[in-house]
Amino acid sequence: MVSKGSATRERLLSLGLDAISVEGLSGITLGGLATAAHMSKSGLFAHFSSKEQLQLDLLDTMAQTATEHVVAPALTESEGLPRLCALVEHWLGWATRAGLRGGCPIAAALFELDDLDGEVRTKVVAMESQWRMLLLSLVDEAVKRGHLDSNIDAEQLVWELCGIYLSHHASSRLARDPAAGKRARIAFDALLRRAGASLPVVPIKQRIKRR
Amino acid sequence: MVSKGSATRERLLSLGLDAISVEGLSGITLGGLATAAHMSKSGLFAHFSSKEQLQLDLLDTMAQTATEHVVAPALTESEGLPRLCALVEHWLGWATRAGLRGGCPIAAALFELDDLDGEVRTKVVAMESQWRMLLLSLVDEAVKRGHLDSNIDAEQLVWELCGIYLSHHASSRLARDPAAGKRARIAFDALLRRAGASLPVVPIKQRIKRR
Repeated sequence: MVSKGSATRERLLSLGLDAISVEGLSGITLGGLATAAHMSKSGLFAHFSSKEQLQLDLLDTMAQTATEHVVAPALTESEGLPRLCALVEHWLGWATRAGLRGGCPIAAALFELDDLDGEVRTKVVAMESQWRMLLLSLVDEAVKRGHLDSNIDAEQLVWELCGIYLSHHASSRLARDPAAGKRARIAFDALLRRAGASLPVVPIKQRIKRR
Repeated sequence: MVSKGSATRERLLSLGLDAISVEGLSGITLGGLATAAHMSKSGLFAHFSSKEQLQLDLLDTMAQTATEHVVAPALTESEGLPRLCALVEHWLGWATRAGLRGGCPIAAALFELDDLDGEVRTKVVAMESQWRMLLLSLVDEAVKRGHLDSNIDAEQLVWELCGIYLSHHASSRLARDPAAGKRARIAFDALLRRAGASLPVVPIKQRIKRR
């Protein structure tokens, strides 16, 4: 049984995650979240001792949500290139499919917190590094299985893939470009081809509908 | 002769540009800028009627600064691929070379304002679109001169180039990765090679030192 306190906490984290997807991590305040949740600010303090603690907890919530919507479905695909491609399919535009009004909070945080200091920045750096390590392990697995050339620079591939993700985020959300999804796929396909892949890996009919 | 009022305004815009490079467009406040400038808030109101007006004026200041540090030096190179490559050399990491403490404010704004509404967002969208049109015109010129294949998708090239820029920003500023500059160059070279370019266009000794 879920206690009333933990159900309230979960509701607050869900509201908060939605809020940071729109306004960024810096935009959230305890007062604003209390208003959105129809609670008193002192009621909120029972769950989060400070704005910073709320931000840190929201980053954990985001990681859980992304794991559920991006990583878990990719893990059902066979190892190597199919799994890497499935992850990218689920990664692009995941925030919308997870029901958030705004975009990926961590992509925004990369630019929001880059020049600031503190625990929240440290956590974002660690999360981003873990994410890149996951991508790297999928690329390495694809190399091991002979799906990609053995002499590729896997870190370079991941670096460029992150650029495709960021460009997709900016063009789909800021410029509201209907071609963003198509452009991301062309770029990703070219990146894989450069790494020696035989395409297509993901049949067109299995691809996720997106902008 | 520069009047005292316009000298003050220029100093405020310069301080403000530095502030948004660190804290983003949303992070700036009239009160904060007044404190940084050792002025009263009411003194500041003589120059900017609202936070939004200040943000809009700072975007103009940023455009002027970027024109001076990125576009102007590129225009001294011969037309076609040399000019495109020079622009990219000067674009990557330009904010630091322009003396700002933080990173490119417009890159941050792409993620900060994507899900918000208002005049500031509209202006960022217009500026980003103009920037992409400039890149597109340089790519088109390189195609016309036979430096790039005539059948390339120039918009796709620009889209991917923007991804390289964003990945460079994130990896150099957030992750503080010393290899960011090298990775951006490898990615850009591969993009140009895919478009049929003969490389290197920019001799190593002319390249800008960067992280």
